[in-house]
Amino acid sequence: MRNICMTVSYDGTEYNGFQSQPIGRTIQGEIEKAIHALTGEDVKIHGSGRTDAGVHARGQVFNFLTESQIPVGKWAIAVNSRLPDDIVIRGAEEVPLYFHARRSAKRKTYRYSIRMGRYPDVFNRRYEFHHYNPLQLDPMREALEYLIGEHDFTTFTSIHSTKKSHVRTIYEAKLVEADGVVHTYFTGNGFLYNMIRIIMGTLMRIGEGKMSAADMPSILAACDRTKAGPKAMAHGLTLWEVEYTSK
Amino acid sequence: MRNICMTVSYDGTEYNGFQSQPIGRTIQGEIEKAIHALTGEDVKIHGSGRTDAGVHARGQVFNFLTESQIPVGKWAIAVNSRLPDDIVIRGAEEVPLYFHARRSAKRKTYRYSIRMGRYPDVFNRRYEFHHYNPLQLDPMREALEYLIGEHDFTTFTSIHSTKKSHVRTIYEAKLVEADGVVHTYFTGNGFLYNMIRIIMGTLMRIGEGKMSAADMPSILAACDRTKAGPKAMAHGLTLWEVEYTSK
Repeated sequence: MRNICMTVSYDGTEYNGFQSQPIGRTIQGEIEKAIHALTGEDVKIHGSGRTDAGVHARGQVFNFLTESQIPVGKWAIAVNSRLPDDIVIRGAEEVPLYFHARRSAKRKTYRYSIRMGRYPDVFNRRYEFHHYNPLQLDPMREALEYLIGEHDFTTFTSIHSTKKSHVRTIYEAKLVEADGVVHTYFTGNGFLYNMIRIIMGTLMRIGEGKMSAADMPSILAACDRTKAGPKAMAHGLTLWEVEYTSK
Repeated sequence: MRNICMTVSYDGTEYNGFQSQPIGRTIQGEIEKAIHALTGEDVKIHGSGRTDAGVHARGQVFNFLTESQIPVGKWAIAVNSRLPDDIVIRGAEEVPLYFHARRSAKRKTYRYSIRMGRYPDVFNRRYEFHHYNPLQLDPMREALEYLIGEHDFTTFTSIHSTKKSHVRTIYEAKLVEADGVVHTYFTGNGFLYNMIRIIMGTLMRIGEGKMSAADMPSILAACDRTKAGPKAMAHGLTLWEVEYTSK
C-alpha cells in the first residue's frame, strides 16, 4: 500500500465545494472519479480541509492510499488527463503511511481578493469580488491587526459551526493593494466555517466607513456572530497554500 | 440622432465570435440585445473588427446610432446591468456622427499568450495556450522582426480570405516572457482573417526548433499558406487595444 500526496489548483466556480456532498459536483468527487478511471480503485481522498461552494484553490493538498504501482512522476499528468480543465493537479509525491493531509497540516494560507472600481475585470471576474466604491485601506489594516494571535473566533464563524472549540491562531494577516485590487492574506493553524468570509465582510464594512476599526477588539471579544459584518461572497476566496513540517 | 462609442472587454470562451452569425451566441448579439432592453431601439453596433470564436478582447471598440437621451456617463453601467458577466462595457463617449469604429481605426494591437510548463494555470486557462515543452524565445524574436513593416501577408492568412488585398503593415511586434508566460504583441493597421493565429503557429514551430527563423523571409515572400505553420488555438488571443487619431 502506498500513500500519495498531491497538490491541486481549481477554479471552484462550477462546484459545490471541495468535499463530496449528496447533491452537486464536487472537487473531491471529480478527483476520485479520475483516479478510478486511471487505476480501477475506489479511493477516498483526504483534503487538507473543505472549501465552500464557489471558493477556489491555488494549492489545496490531499492524500490517498493506493495499491497502484504508477511511478510518482507520472501521477499528476495521468490524473490531469482524466480531469475537467478547471481542476489541475500540480504535483504528486509518495509520503509515509502516517501522513494525513488534514491532520498533518501545520499552517494554511487563504487569500481574499477585491477589485475596487467602476468595472469588474472580465478576465478575473470569477476570482475577485467587485466593489464599486473605493475602500479605505488603512482602517482595514488596523482592524486586521487585532485578529492576529490566538483568539476565540465565535464572532466570525457561522452559527451552524459544529466545532467544540472556536479557538484558532492567526499567525499573519496582511492586506496589499496594486492597481485597484486588494488582496488580503490570512495564515493560521486552521480556520472555522465561513471565518474568512465573515472577517472580510466585516473589514469591508470598516473600509466603507460603516464600522470602526477601533471596535474590532470588542467585536471579537463578544463571541457573538451578530456583532460581525455580513459574510463576503465566496468567489473572492482562494485557498492559497497549505504547509507541513514534513511529509 | 447621437453616435455613441463604447469600449468593451469580453471573455470570448462561450461565444461564436464578435460578429452576429446565423448560429450561436455572439458578443454583438448580446450587446444589441442589452441596448434594446435599455432603450427599446433595434440598434446595429459597428465593431472595430471581428474576433473569431473563442478570441477575447480587453479593449474592443464599437459605435452605434441612437435617439436615446441617456447621459453619456450613465451608458456603461446601464448596459452592463443587462449583459452577462463575461462582457463588460468599460467606457462610453459621444462622438461625431462621421465616426465609425472600423473605418476610423488607425492601429490595432493584439496579444497572444502562451504558458510554458508541465501544468496550465487553472485561473488563466481560458486566456493562455498551454505549451508543455519550453520554447526557444530568441529564434521566435528573430522571426518576428522579419514581419515588421508593409508586406503581403497571404502566407499568413486563411485560404478562405475574401479580401482583395493582403497587404498590411505591422508597426510593432514584440515578445515578452515573465514567469513562464510568453506574451506576443502585434500592432498594425489591420490584420487578415486568422493572420495572428497562423503567425503564432509558425512562431511556435520555430520555438520548438522544427522550423528556422532564417526561413521567415522566404516563407513570407512565398505568398503561400502551405509554407506557414498551423493555426494556433483561438483562446490564447486577445484584442488588446484599438487606437484612433481622434474620435
